[in-house]
Amino acid sequence: MVESVFMAELSWPEWQEKIANGAIMFIPLGATEQHGPHLPLNVDVILPTAVCARVARHVGGLVAPTLQYGYKSMPRSGGGQTFPGTTSLDAQTFAHTLRDVIRDMGAHGARRFVVVNGHFENAWPSVEGLDLGLRALRQENITDVTAMRLEYWDFVRRETLDRIFPEGFPGTELEHASLIETSLMLLLRPDLVAQDKIPQEGRANFPPYDIFPAPPGYLRGTGVLADARGARAEIGQWLMDDHVALITAAIVKEFGL
Amino acid sequence: MVESVFMAELSWPEWQEKIANGAIMFIPLGATEQHGPHLPLNVDVILPTAVCARVARHVGGLVAPTLQYGYKSMPRSGGGQTFPGTTSLDAQTFAHTLRDVIRDMGAHGARRFVVVNGHFENAWPSVEGLDLGLRALRQENITDVTAMRLEYWDFVRRETLDRIFPEGFPGTELEHASLIETSLMLLLRPDLVAQDKIPQEGRANFPPYDIFPAPPGYLRGTGVLADARGARAEIGQWLMDDHVALITAAIVKEFGL
Amino acid sequence: MVESVFMAELSWPEWQEKIANGAIMFIPLGATEQHGPHLPLNVDVILPTAVCARVARHVGGLVAPTLQYGYKSMPRSGGGQTFPGTTSLDAQTFAHTLRDVIRDMGAHGARRFVVVNGHFENAWPSVEGLDLGLRALRQENITDVTAMRLEYWDFVRRETLDRIFPEGFPGTELEHASLIETSLMLLLRPDLVAQDKIPQEGRANFPPYDIFPAPPGYLRGTGVLADARGARAEIGQWLMDDHVALITAAIVKEFGL
Amino acid sequence: MVESVFMAELSWPEWQEKIANGAIMFIPLGATEQHGPHLPLNVDVILPTAVCARVARHVGGLVAPTLQYGYKSMPRSGGGQTFPGTTSLDAQTFAHTLRDVIRDMGAHGARRFVVVNGHFENAWPSVEGLDLGLRALRQENITDVTAMRLEYWDFVRRETLDRIFPEGFPGTELEHASLIETSLMLLLRPDLVAQDKIPQEGRANFPPYDIFPAPPGYLRGTGVLADARGARAEIGQWLMDDHVALITAAIVKEFGL
Amino acid sequence: MVESVFMAELSWPEWQEKIANGAIMFIPLGATEQHGPHLPLNVDVILPTAVCARVARHVGGLVAPTLQYGYKSMPRSGGGQTFPGTTSLDAQTFAHTLRDVIRDMGAHGARRFVVVNGHFENAWPSVEGLDLGLRALRQENITDVTAMRLEYWDFVRRETLDRIFPEGFPGTELEHASLIETSLMLLLRPDLVAQDKIPQEGRANFPPYDIFPAPPGYLRGTGVLADARGARAEIGQWLMDDHVALITAAIVKEFGL
Amino acid sequence: MVESVFMAELSWPEWQEKIANGAIMFIPLGATEQHGPHLPLNVDVILPTAVCARVARHVGGLVAPTLQYGYKSMPRSGGGQTFPGTTSLDAQTFAHTLRDVIRDMGAHGARRFVVVNGHFENAWPSVEGLDLGLRALRQENITDVTAMRLEYWDFVRRETLDRIFPEGFPGTELEHASLIETSLMLLLRPDLVAQDKIPQEGRANFPPYDIFPAPPGYLRGTGVLADARGARAEIGQWLMDDHVALITAAIVKEFGL
Repeated sequence: MVESVFMAELSWPEWQEKIANGAIMFIPLGATEQHGPHLPLNVDVILPTAVCARVARHVGGLVAPTLQYGYKSMPRSGGGQTFPGTTSLDAQTFAHTLRDVIRDMGAHGARRFVVVNGHFENAWPSVEGLDLGLRALRQENITDVTAMRLEYWDFVRRETLDRIFPEGFPGTELEHASLIETSLMLLLRPDLVAQDKIPQEGRANFPPYDIFPAPPGYLRGTGVLADARGARAEIGQWLMDDHVALITAAIVKEFGL
Repeated sequence: MVESVFMAELSWPEWQEKIANGAIMFIPLGATEQHGPHLPLNVDVILPTAVCARVARHVGGLVAPTLQYGYKSMPRSGGGQTFPGTTSLDAQTFAHTLRDVIRDMGAHGARRFVVVNGHFENAWPSVEGLDLGLRALRQENITDVTAMRLEYWDFVRRETLDRIFPEGFPGTELEHASLIETSLMLLLRPDLVAQDKIPQEGRANFPPYDIFPAPPGYLRGTGVLADARGARAEIGQWLMDDHVALITAAIVKEFGL
Repeated sequence: MVESVFMAELSWPEWQEKIANGAIMFIPLGATEQHGPHLPLNVDVILPTAVCARVARHVGGLVAPTLQYGYKSMPRSGGGQTFPGTTSLDAQTFAHTLRDVIRDMGAHGARRFVVVNGHFENAWPSVEGLDLGLRALRQENITDVTAMRLEYWDFVRRETLDRIFPEGFPGTELEHASLIETSLMLLLRPDLVAQDKIPQEGRANFPPYDIFPAPPGYLRGTGVLADARGARAEIGQWLMDDHVALITAAIVKEFGL
Repeated sequence: MVESVFMAELSWPEWQEKIANGAIMFIPLGATEQHGPHLPLNVDVILPTAVCARVARHVGGLVAPTLQYGYKSMPRSGGGQTFPGTTSLDAQTFAHTLRDVIRDMGAHGARRFVVVNGHFENAWPSVEGLDLGLRALRQENITDVTAMRLEYWDFVRRETLDRIFPEGFPGTELEHASLIETSLMLLLRPDLVAQDKIPQEGRANFPPYDIFPAPPGYLRGTGVLADARGARAEIGQWLMDDHVALITAAIVKEFGL
Repeated sequence: MVESVFMAELSWPEWQEKIANGAIMFIPLGATEQHGPHLPLNVDVILPTAVCARVARHVGGLVAPTLQYGYKSMPRSGGGQTFPGTTSLDAQTFAHTLRDVIRDMGAHGARRFVVVNGHFENAWPSVEGLDLGLRALRQENITDVTAMRLEYWDFVRRETLDRIFPEGFPGTELEHASLIETSLMLLLRPDLVAQDKIPQEGRANFPPYDIFPAPPGYLRGTGVLADARGARAEIGQWLMDDHVALITAAIVKEFGL
Repeated sequence: MVESVFMAELSWPEWQEKIANGAIMFIPLGATEQHGPHLPLNVDVILPTAVCARVARHVGGLVAPTLQYGYKSMPRSGGGQTFPGTTSLDAQTFAHTLRDVIRDMGAHGARRFVVVNGHFENAWPSVEGLDLGLRALRQENITDVTAMRLEYWDFVRRETLDRIFPEGFPGTELEHASLIETSLMLLLRPDLVAQDKIPQEGRANFPPYDIFPAPPGYLRGTGVLADARGARAEIGQWLMDDHVALITAAIVKEFGL
């Protein structure tokens, strides 16, 4: 059996031993969601999994199987549920999945978790799932668990954003299927990127509210919210380097490694 | 973008087009569960995913992202929840996940589903999830959906079993981490099989009841319920050939392909 | 007040005293389900209740009120939900009922449970209900409970099956409204058996998958899955003798009586 | 097969035929609850079942299997959950059971329901269960269902109460395990009444509030809330005659029989 | 900041200090429900809030924000859900709200609760919510909580009712939007009472059952169930005086103030 | 009865008439949450209610009763659940409340909703509640509903923020109990603001992750996340003017008023 940071590739005695030695469990939260005509539906699975694997190697942690289905996509941050292929869970289903995973791993000895979100809309349901998971463990009188929860894209240096967006970073929310995600995919899975299909529109401009059903013109036809033109693997590398370095540093600090 | 049977690797327009053309959606149901000291925790993810991919190629279908966490392991069929690494969902969480996936895909046009179970204990919660999913679609006035649900291991010819078990096939339930699963893993992911760690015990002998907590001697220490000695990739190939041929035939018959 | 093994027929001080003395609580799980044109809808209530009463007398136990509604009938094992009269619960409703019953009895001092299933499809939801019930008790810091869970039909000697099926026992799953259940009903409630209405078909032959909606010919028109011809009360007595003797022996062994 | 008003004793074709002919489905709601030292735990099962059977015979209806477990007992009306033997369901479990039963019977053609409550505390959860059941049927586009819901004890003539309580009827709420229920049990199941154990206390006197945990002296030690002395089968007959006549009349009026 | 009995008007250090000193938390349960053509939809919010505020001042307690939406209105006690403006919660939603409020306040140190119901139909869901709340606290090992639950209208002296209804008090259930509630509103919020719109009908006369859908003539057209004519603020003051005095006395007794 | 934009203050015929005429229903989402030592626990109730009332007057709408309890406070945006007085709901409870309110109002004829959030953490559970509410209406075949959902603080002009924060607006997330909320409270309820208790600390500086339990120094002792010094009612007026004007404009545009 190969040495692996992926829990799924270990046998149970191997997992047990690592956990008994204090290994941190990383839980990547993905989604199956449209990412424009040039990217596959699994962008939000690939990216947080890759970040987790790299950080886990640095800190001696293990990566749990990535949640493949995420919380419902919203028009302003992911195109919305009306896009074909976007396959999502009710909030309770998502939160209960995370709760159950944490409960079982905690029952088997895991005491340190890092929940790494890769899909914007998962943020709050993952807060709930984590809260319910820690509650479930307390109810079994397991009270010495520490858990971090983060969005990987928040771990980037100002300088990196300035380098990528010389005219100013327009903010995370619209970075859906756009320059950042496309660059990371070019780094990680260029075989799944159809660069010739990158839309030639500019940035979407949403009003500051949700509305159902979406009025004509509210949704972006392509599902891309900002601009993916100019994406390069090199940019993906800059971002990945930041994500790994900064998340690693945060974990080292908080877990006293 | 590559041609792929995996929905996750398609862009949304590609998925939409295939579904509009009647592509069957395969939904593999996996688990993260101990499989003895010689197999990884993801056996029940890898096997149904591989079966689905092969069948989907035959019938022009698509494979949804595999559910990574399954229903609770039972001592008599999977070793039970007390094995470290076995990370499972409450029945409601599992069933709601399948319900939500079917609801969203149905809302986006999918009309033919094949739910392929790869973990013994998923059987009944997947019945419930499928029933709730079809109910949810009916509640949205989508009533023309057809869905099959199966355990892949039931699709094997008598002759094949006789060839593998010349002294008689002892039945599916104990085939956990044993000859069949080990052979299939040797076929598909030999890098994840530690043949030198295959237990040298014989077959487990369970009484016909569950008991909690398990009394001394009730659980198998290794997590292997039958005998994995003699596993070979060739046997895995025989089985896989049967699974693919017989499931394909059933689908062709029922969906009138 | 009569001496009774039925909890329902005791006053609360009588129940309390027996439980304080360590009486085992039997919980029979029934169903309201079609059993062909010759048997009533309550076969799955009558049979496990009768088994429990007999075993309880042997071991000084008490029988809780039988759950009257079971989990959804499946075509391959019970005819399916489309048969009129089959009235079933969602999995969560069924599991929560069992959870609540165990929680309350545990709170009142019961520490030993035997859950006796009388309806094939109840098997897994009863696993979940038992697991949730034991969890609920742990959450109230009640941790010294032991619980068995079984299908009564699994407790039969090979010789008995050979005597009943000289040409070989075709397996439990299709024994719905067939020779075994009809014989047991002839033993217990012959007034409810219409022997002249026993279908004259042979055994059903199901493919190894579920399919919804059932295609033409998939469902058995009568609701009888195997053959009930030849049923006799004497056969029922053979079976009942085995059920009672073997379940009693298992309980004596596991509870150290 | 005998002619029976009990659905459970019919075969599925018999049930189907009666329902197709417009038979009203009666659903009795029982409980497993302490009823003092002189009555068994199943009083609230026996009484509504008996009422339903009698009324069903009058109006050509059928009686569904009685729910054996009810909603939580309250101190002021049933002694409270701290009495051993009182085994109850969470409100959601109870309501969902009723919902599921109505949904399935409605799906199979039942269009007229009478829900007959036999346990004080079931009143509101049965309102919820009925509401959820009708909603579930509407969601399947079944909209022509009529349903009554009643407590059987409300159907009694003033004259009868005056005859039983010459000094004035003290009200339903405390009639737990007292004169009325004991008399009805003497009528129906005298073998289960231990008249020598009827407490010799008078009527309980509760303050107009619930309090948890119950302070000393708040709960009645015997579980009997009023006075059962003087109970006679004849009184039970007067009551039963009223129940049957008045409920029958109400059904005839509302269903236009 | 003003001195206030309303928790909502305190800062967190002020709330914390009072709770640390043993302040009783009052939780008023309201509703948004039709109250005839002469009263606003918030009668059931205003009345219990006012009672709580007055009692809290007497006993040094604090009043939590009133639940604004109640359990479903029933025809016999509130007109039923078909009245426009009656906006209600499913039982589970209502019960879970109360559970969550009690859980959080208990986690922050509150140990004494008085749940004051102002809407008839809230009675049983509030029993459930309180039970679930205390269970949730036990699951966090908080076991020293005392909680009362009451309907404020039950705290009235016989003499007062005799004074208001010289011909005899007809009972609580029909006192919906009638003399009592109208008088209390004239006391508390005369600006919201349209005395000229008080219906000139007499008292409703309901049969002793619920029926869905309501047959013609079953529902009261105005939503007023009894007679509101003759309502006066002075009557409201008599009632309020009783409510405050008697509830205060009960609390003093039970909490040993 | 007074003319009022508050649904709660209308009688049911008044509400019905306005809804029949197309009145928009505003649903303010509040919370009971710590807001530092100088502000009361109801800031997040008062502010969205006030915004809704003003906008409703402009567009002829009505304001539903404000949800008094919100979703769980997070350390980075509201101080977190460990602050005494912060009393919150599980995500499911919150979402189901919004679902039920929308379902009932929709059943009674409301077709246009504006959900106005006043508590940062309510954002996503309110997305879920709205989605479930619209689904519930579709299940009753009500499909012509339009619903907006917004955070009121997003409706402010750049110029206003520049005027308030001449050195640059630091972003919404930390504006908890700080300059903006304090100024709005000084405008609306100066009696509830204790200006002498405004903390003299600067702005909190959170790392970009959640961590449970919070390590020493992670939580702000006062519960104030930014700086409230310099708050004035005049600033509150500037903000309120923007909120009302911009939300009104958005509604006029989207609902075609």
